[in-house]
Parts: sequence; structure tokens; C-alpha cells
Amino acid sequence: MVFTQHYPIRFSDTDAAGVVYFAKGLALCHAAYEDSLQAAGIEVRSFFNPNAPLAYPIVHASINYHRPLRCGDVVTLVLCPQRLDESSFEITYRLYATPASEQPLADALTRHCCIEPHPRRRHPLPAAMVQWLQTWGMVSDHQDIAAG
Amino acid sequence: MVFTQHYPIRFSDTDAAGVVYFAKGLALCHAAYEDSLQAAGIEVRSFFNPNAPLAYPIVHASINYHRPLRCGDVVTLVLCPQRLDESSFEITYRLYATPASEQPLADALTRHCCIEPHPRRRHPLPAAMVQWLQTWGMVSDHQDIAAG
Amino acid sequence: MVFTQHYPIRFSDTDAAGVVYFAKGLALCHAAYEDSLQAAGIEVRSFFNPNAPLAYPIVHASINYHRPLRCGDVVTLVLCPQRLDESSFEITYRLYATPASEQPLADALTRHCCIEPHPRRRHPLPAAMVQWLQTWGMVSDHQDIAAG
Amino acid sequence: MVFTQHYPIRFSDTDAAGVVYFAKGLALCHAAYEDSLQAAGIEVRSFFNPNAPLAYPIVHASINYHRPLRCGDVVTLVLCPQRLDESSFEITYRLYATPASEQPLADALTRHCCIEPHPRRRHPLPAAMVQWLQTWGMVSDHQDIAAG
Repeated sequence: MVFTQHYPIRFSDTDAAGVVYFAKGLALCHAAYEDSLQAAGIEVRSFFNPNAPLAYPIVHASINYHRPLRCGDVVTLVLCPQRLDESSFEITYRLYATPASEQPLADALTRHCCIEPHPRRRHPLPAAMVQWLQTWGMVSDHQDIAAG
Repeated sequence: MVFTQHYPIRFSDTDAAGVVYFAKGLALCHAAYEDSLQAAGIEVRSFFNPNAPLAYPIVHASINYHRPLRCGDVVTLVLCPQRLDESSFEITYRLYATPASEQPLADALTRHCCIEPHPRRRHPLPAAMVQWLQTWGMVSDHQDIAAG
Repeated sequence: MVFTQHYPIRFSDTDAAGVVYFAKGLALCHAAYEDSLQAAGIEVRSFFNPNAPLAYPIVHASINYHRPLRCGDVVTLVLCPQRLDESSFEITYRLYATPASEQPLADALTRHCCIEPHPRRRHPLPAAMVQWLQTWGMVSDHQDIAAG
Repeated sequence: MVFTQHYPIRFSDTDAAGVVYFAKGLALCHAAYEDSLQAAGIEVRSFFNPNAPLAYPIVHASINYHRPLRCGDVVTLVLCPQRLDESSFEITYRLYATPASEQPLADALTRHCCIEPHPRRRHPLPAAMVQWLQTWGMVSDHQDIAAG
């Protein structure tokens, strides 16, 4: 099961070339990440609270644009997370026209690292995030390997 | 009849103070403006197309924050447009917590002027926008006065 | 003495209409506010630190556009703060073409309230901010009246 | 010779985690791209004009964060473009603390494709862009190989 949701391209997402500003596509992906957390029972308000005990900064992000996105387009965004190691995961995103065509308009990737914020140091993913990974993605063999 | 819709506050809307960056509340209002156009039968993709025959630049915008908005909050946004004169209109916005409390979290205002873009000069509001004003707002007495 | 600085309009500030997105003009004003603090000896890094003992949320913002701003334009921004009462101040901004013409391209206003963040409650402006007000703006007669 | 310039991290670049929002680092890189064009004699106002005969959409972007960036930090940004083929180029960016330390805070990459916008189709890089590549970067052996 993957997480899928529709998102309209907003006028604020565009630039003077008449298409989505390249960095804004990544913000759209992050909105889907937020919605996938909420849909898996993780309260976004607490998760992104500055005083939360754990944070998940993005250490890598990339995006490929195959076709331009314009204001008023509705994007079908497909999100799939995967665990990388004890404390980190990555998310792949595919952005399709709506109704979905075979070829995506864009695809993207973010890598996140679970940390304690004060001081900043790595922390194993908590149970709620393992649950989120199991809900929308593929859990890697990391723990099995570690346990094996 | 007023236009009402729910909007989640995104992580990208926040700043290091942990609340919505002051200018981002206005972008949220603009999203509701876009949705109110679409809901009145105006195709947003054409309306905001750089080559459209008419444009509606914002000549004034203001916002008041009564309470902080945070990531994960869902805002109930109430939008009401009103015609100002032959070629311009304003939109008032009220942003409420969801479920709606009596006092808004914020309120805002934008004033828009209908122009031909090349060269930039004022143009009377077309029928579709008069229809949009009638759908979601109050038509001023301007035309009646003009006709009277 | 007023605070004046040049700011280039960035591609990321524009929208599909080919001009500055209306809410981005306010972000430009905030950049000037940050620079005016730094120029008056207030370290921006500490001032906007989420754990700072005081915060200055914007409770009102407004902007008027008189002429369109485009990517590559360099704006001469003139900033002038004024104290409103014991715990709040407002800043007026004028944005001119560079070299400056007589008529501004836009003007804006923000009102800020000094608060303790936890819990959020009003706090008198500290000495450093009174100093900043004296450096770039006009101190109101509030305290004199209060003292008189 | 590489292009190097200082950029302050703005409050609008931050998010509720107290650091730069991950997609905003890419906007900072684009600002440096704009400044490198201007510094090589290409007028940014015309270059990013919606009616310009050529456009350079970004088809790929990526960023790695090694350390958090905070409001008030001043980033020393080093930009280096490289031609990829007849109609495309990539730019690498390194973001350092100021004064520069040995390890970058972040590094990024954008790939750009030269197109005629109406209809969108690839176009060889014009002389001005070849000049820009020679000023700040390394011209690949592509044309030599093609000619050899």
C-alpha cells in the first residue's frame, strides 16, 4: 500500500517562467509527507513541534522534472518511505498529472535522520515511525540482519 | 453564501519562532481565492496563465494575526469578495480554528485591479468575474448607481 | 536618520504573472528589518533564536503596490520604525526603483508586539530595541506622556 | 576562477525546527546563479523575462545538508558551472560558514536545459552562456570531441 493524494499547484508555487519554481516541487512533496504521517495516526502538530523530543531533519533532497507543472494543475502524488538504517529513512515521491498518466511529471527523494535536538545527535527511529514505514512503505532487512 | 474551505498549515508555512511566517498567511488566503474561482466555474489554469488576456494584480494586501497558527493546525477559511468599482474588487478573509471558534485566528484583505497586461491598463471586470462576485459575495451598488 | 539598503528582486520572488508575488514584497521588508537590527548592533542570530527570552511577532502587516516589481530589479528600501506603546512598535517601508525615483514602487507596514514566548504575554521593549528605535526612527512621546 | 559571494540566512528561510527549511537552501543557490549571470555581464532582468527568446528550466536539483543553517548565519557560497552537452549545463554549489571553514555546511547541484519556450524544445546554448561558463566554470570537452 502506498500513500496517494491530490494536490493543486498554487499560484504561489509558480515563477516568472510560468511554471512551478524548481524548489517548490519539494515543498509539495513535504506536504504529502505531512499528510502521510497524519493518515498513519501521527499527530502532525506534535511531530513538528519545536519542543518535540525527536526531530527528523532532511539531510538530502533531490527532484527531477520531466514536464512543466503549472498553476491550476492537480498533481497526483504517490509517496513511498523506506528505512535506511537504525535512525534514518528515505522517501520517494512520484508526481503525476490527474487523471494519472503513465509517465510522472516529476519524481523526488528526501532522506531524513532521526535526532535528539539538544544536543543534536542520532536516535533510533521510535515505534510510531516504524509503524508509519510499515503502513506506507517497505521496511528494510536492516533489523533482521541486525537480529540474524 | 460565502466560500468556506479547510486548509492545513504546512511545515513550509512556519518560521523559527514556531508559528506561521507572517507573509505566508496571505498565501493561504490566495489559495482560497484560487479555490473560490474554480468552485464558481472559472478554470484556474487559464485564469492565471501568463498569456491570459486579463490579469488581476493585487494592489493592496493586509493581514491581522490575533492568535498564532502552527504546523498541523487546520484553518477554516471564510472568503467574501466585494466589487469596488468598474475594474476592481476586494476580498476579505477570516481564518478560524477547526472546529470553528467564535473569534478568528486572523483576518486579511486583498484588493485586486483588472488590467490588460500589454500594456498594463485598467479593464472592466468581465462577466465571469461578476458572476464569481455574485456567487460568493456582495455586488456593490456601483452599477445601479451608474445606471440610475 | 533612516535605514536604507538595496535588495535585488530574486527569481524566487516572482510568480507566473511575471512580477513579484504579492506576499513576497513583505518578506523583502522583513529582510530589511533584520539588516536594520544587525546594523544597530543587535545580533540577528540571537534575536530570532527560538529559545530567545523575548519574541516580536507581527500582529499586523500591509503592503501597497504602485508599480510592478520584476526579477532583476534592484529595490532601494527605506525603513523607519516607530514606537507605539510600552511593548509594541510599527515599521514603515518604502520601496523605490534604483536609482531612486520620486514615487515609490510599493510601501508597507508591519506592527510588532514584544512578548515572552512561554507563556505568550506582553513584555516591555528592552533597552536594545529602544536603542534600535532611536537609531532608525522616531521614539513616540508615550514614555514622556506616561512620565509627565 | 569560481564565483563566490556572501548571503545572509533570512528569517523567512527558516522553519519551526529553527533551521533553514530544506527546499530554501536551493533558492539561495539560485540567487547565487542570478548574481553570477549579472557579474558575467548578462542582464538578469532580460534573462528571466517571461518573453525572453530562450529559457533555462531546471530539470534536476539536489542538496545535501551537513550541518544546520540558522537565521543570521552568513553563508559563503561558491558556485561552479559546467557544460554537459550542446544545450545543457550543471552548476555545483558549496555553502560554507563565514569566515569559511574547511567543511561545507551544505552542497547542491542544479541541471539546466536551454529551450525555446513556444513550443518547448531544446536549443543550443547561446554565446553569452558559453561566455558565462568560461568565466566561472569549466567548459567540457564535448564540442572538441564532437569536432574531433
